[in-house]
Amino acid sequence: MATTVKIFDTTLRDGTQGEGISLSVEDKMKIARKLDSLGVHYIEGGWPGSNNKDIEFFNRVEELELKNAKVTAFGSTRRKDTLPENDLNLNRILEVGVPVATIFGKSWDFHVHQAIQTTLEENLAMIYDSVKYLKSNGLEVIYDAEHFFDGYKNNAEYALQTIKKAEEAGADWIVLCDTNGGSMPHEISQIVTVVKQTISTPIGIHAHNDCELGVANSLSAVMAGATQVQGTINGFGERCGNANLVSVIPNLQLKLGYECIGAEQLATLSTVARYVSEIANMHLPVNQPYVGSAAFAHKGGIHVSAILRNSSTYEHITPELVGNKQRVLVSELAGQSNLVFKAQELGLDFDNDNQQTKKLIEQIKDMEHQGYQFEGADATLELLIRDAYGKLEEAFTLESLKIMVVKTADQPVVTEAIVKLKVNGETVYNAAEGNGPVNALDNALRKCLMQYYPSLQNVHLSDYKVRVLDEKDTTAAKVRVLVESTDFSSSWSTVGVSGNVIEASWDALVDSFRYALLGQSCTVVPDEHRERVGLVNH
Amino acid sequence: MATTVKIFDTTLRDGTQGEGISLSVEDKMKIARKLDSLGVHYIEGGWPGSNNKDIEFFNRVEELELKNAKVTAFGSTRRKDTLPENDLNLNRILEVGVPVATIFGKSWDFHVHQAIQTTLEENLAMIYDSVKYLKSNGLEVIYDAEHFFDGYKNNAEYALQTIKKAEEAGADWIVLCDTNGGSMPHEISQIVTVVKQTISTPIGIHAHNDCELGVANSLSAVMAGATQVQGTINGFGERCGNANLVSVIPNLQLKLGYECIGAEQLATLSTVARYVSEIANMHLPVNQPYVGSAAFAHKGGIHVSAILRNSSTYEHITPELVGNKQRVLVSELAGQSNLVFKAQELGLDFDNDNQQTKKLIEQIKDMEHQGYQFEGADATLELLIRDAYGKLEEAFTLESLKIMVVKTADQPVVTEAIVKLKVNGETVYNAAEGNGPVNALDNALRKCLMQYYPSLQNVHLSDYKVRVLDEKDTTAAKVRVLVESTDFSSSWSTVGVSGNVIEASWDALVDSFRYALLGQSCTVVPDEHRERVGLVNH
Repeated sequence: MATTVKIFDTTLRDGTQGEGISLSVEDKMKIARKLDSLGVHYIEGGWPGSNNKDIEFFNRVEELELKNAKVTAFGSTRRKDTLPENDLNLNRILEVGVPVATIFGKSWDFHVHQAIQTTLEENLAMIYDSVKYLKSNGLEVIYDAEHFFDGYKNNAEYALQTIKKAEEAGADWIVLCDTNGGSMPHEISQIVTVVKQTISTPIGIHAHNDCELGVANSLSAVMAGATQVQGTINGFGERCGNANLVSVIPNLQLKLGYECIGAEQLATLSTVARYVSEIANMHLPVNQPYVGSAAFAHKGGIHVSAILRNSSTYEHITPELVGNKQRVLVSELAGQSNLVFKAQELGLDFDNDNQQTKKLIEQIKDMEHQGYQFEGADATLELLIRDAYGKLEEAFTLESLKIMVVKTADQPVVTEAIVKLKVNGETVYNAAEGNGPVNALDNALRKCLMQYYPSLQNVHLSDYKVRVLDEKDTTAAKVRVLVESTDFSSSWSTVGVSGNVIEASWDALVDSFRYALLGQSCTVVPDEHRERVGLVNH
Repeated sequence: MATTVKIFDTTLRDGTQGEGISLSVEDKMKIARKLDSLGVHYIEGGWPGSNNKDIEFFNRVEELELKNAKVTAFGSTRRKDTLPENDLNLNRILEVGVPVATIFGKSWDFHVHQAIQTTLEENLAMIYDSVKYLKSNGLEVIYDAEHFFDGYKNNAEYALQTIKKAEEAGADWIVLCDTNGGSMPHEISQIVTVVKQTISTPIGIHAHNDCELGVANSLSAVMAGATQVQGTINGFGERCGNANLVSVIPNLQLKLGYECIGAEQLATLSTVARYVSEIANMHLPVNQPYVGSAAFAHKGGIHVSAILRNSSTYEHITPELVGNKQRVLVSELAGQSNLVFKAQELGLDFDNDNQQTKKLIEQIKDMEHQGYQFEGADATLELLIRDAYGKLEEAFTLESLKIMVVKTADQPVVTEAIVKLKVNGETVYNAAEGNGPVNALDNALRKCLMQYYPSLQNVHLSDYKVRVLDEKDTTAAKVRVLVESTDFSSSWSTVGVSGNVIEASWDALVDSFRYALLGQSCTVVPDEHRERVGLVNH
């Protein structure tokens, strides 16, 4: 039977130390939900002793109704010369009510002297007391041995003493951290082997990527006996990042025969990687192993005919195992089978061979080539599919739009939009202010539509993201705009791509409203109501 | 004495297979010159049998007057059932006049049958004849055993036969290729060990990064006896890329005690990585190991005070060894020590206790509370620090700005901006179009400033990101805009936060220009030049 390796995700804690990554509580909630569905075993939600945003996340964790993962809170061992009962850090962990605590302590004698400036003895007591205190409060305790490998190389005996203390105090896991990310795989292997002979508590590994070896070091540790891997989605994290779980998991599971998550969950890996990237507003590199859009792309002419004859000779795994897909040449066939699946989901009779289907596939290929991405925009995809089958009437059409932005000296910016639409055969004309061109446009469009579709008053934008697609040629650069909308009971995402950010935003906005109006018929609002809400026909 | 490992760079050949990478002959010349100065031993310039651009490069190679590197041309073994003398591929290699040929042949029996569709015997003859022919023409011959590891796993005996043939024919090197990038480090190690016992020709490794193990696999091979590593700068290459030499070299040299390039050359590694990225028009990830701008960046207040006490406890190497430098990021998590460190970096006499410092710290805290984030916006932070110390004059001030966006029915959007500034005591007034409101604003601002600061013509935006900060309350939502700018030799990032996206963008743009103009004095461009570039004063 395969050995199980537990996956400990720290995207929400160590991952947010990465440059340019900042997650709101709402972002964290979304990511946690996704991590749970991926099947990770532990989700480290934050450091309640360090900041209030993290506390808010823990307060809301129950809303998530997680099915697979245990949520854990991070903290340090007690401060020197205090009682654990009086330690804010440890008590915050207890207060937030998580079932698992993850606390770190010092393994490197040098750090004990330099960083926390205490004695080696007191550091051992800090570890023992802290683990014991959390255990006696009924928590599962994961002890992170910070700088363990550097510490071991400097003073092996002391480093081993620190983890023996954690073991004596009842730690459920002892996780060896390569905090500075400077260790080589063979060192990890040798040191984990020694630790394995020294303690009987299950061992974990926490690696960083400073030598581009975060994944390799994690595998080395597992092969030497570690049964927990800590890391982050896409390797987010301080400096060069943490071990990338998106590569660690398939390597362990598909290459080395360990068991981490279910096969069905593994098949969502690419989606999860892209989703987390989107939420964090980070670019997912096209060449990211396993999940990047180029990971199974074939360019070299000689290869292609052979690939068509037999994929397995040019691909190290079947891309579908991790939810990715093969791409040949420039063409980006968005998986015909995905489309068929999606259409069936929508209750449409989707035939692989008919003209409409072929045309739709061509259209999607072409759009992907232009920079559209449908993973983060399923509402736009649904509209495309429905359009192809002629089942969709236009709820409105644009006659014109104008946006004006004015700023004088130190006065704040004023932004106004004027929109002229054709709705239900009538011309509607309205203006609105906004906190930016797109917001003004959204407000004006909404005012126009609300008199025909009053339900839209519950619909609002919940997120708006712009990404420059081609950084090389900024004058010709395209932008992709992702809009997330919600009507409180559900949410949906739409996408627009254009050389002009307003055009791209308009397209995404229009799709958002079209999606909101699916299945709704036009209701003309009585005139008195129109006047009340300031709507004027023209 | 340290074992020497030869570095074989294939950025110009395999690297150009990477998605989005396309190099002109001039680009290749520049990169080759840089690779030579870095001290790589072989530069694979291209595949003369496959395309004419590569032939042009080889024709111009002598101009480069390389000091360290030998240039090599790539090709395949002869076609089946022909004589090597009649083989276009092999003859092209001879024609381009390089001292070294690199030819690849099949190691995997399955590929012999499926891809080239011949017998196992004929494949052996193809290898033997081709190596022999090139050797008899006086070339150094590197034999790349394609798919060697997959071949070995499938039919070890045949895979070993193929490289024995290359050895018999006199190959100078036998390079084992993990062409699909699917092998694990321990497999590489085991198989290289067997090969080492089978042949006496020096062995090389050619790894790909499909499992995020390209670097680890290269190290594994070297530790098992390989003395040549093939790879690319920044890991450019097909799918997930080739082994990244920028990580391989310092790992071998600083961590494992091998000798690759000189210490002085190693100290140019970061420059080379950035240079090649610029030429290839690829974004160098901030978190790239060893050379990224975040590779030695520290966030988090508790660490920073320890770092100031002793860097080596939080850094796996001294950044200067690879030409990088330490950076301290100021962020919500960080304390005062970060700021002190930053000011010291700027050569400012920053006193912890004086009023200016306290005021600045309050200001930064307040701005962070509003949603500013400085870790991705060094330039804005630097301006704030310089402003606090009264060392900075305003290069310009805004009188007014207007942006107009118009779209009619299905016509594309038109976006125009008008900017009125006070520069050098004069009022400047200009208009420009753009691919969006911010781009139009940027263009108009640039037109205004260029007549006073002509150096700005080299400055351009390389990235633009918008993030909605508080998704809960969209009407009151703030946005954070991050702008990245470059003048080809360096790049810097600035940030703006506002309830209005144009205001936030304006603030970030203004900081970008102010930073670009640091230390520059105003030069009024002669009137005739102003007219030529369409600049008109008002």
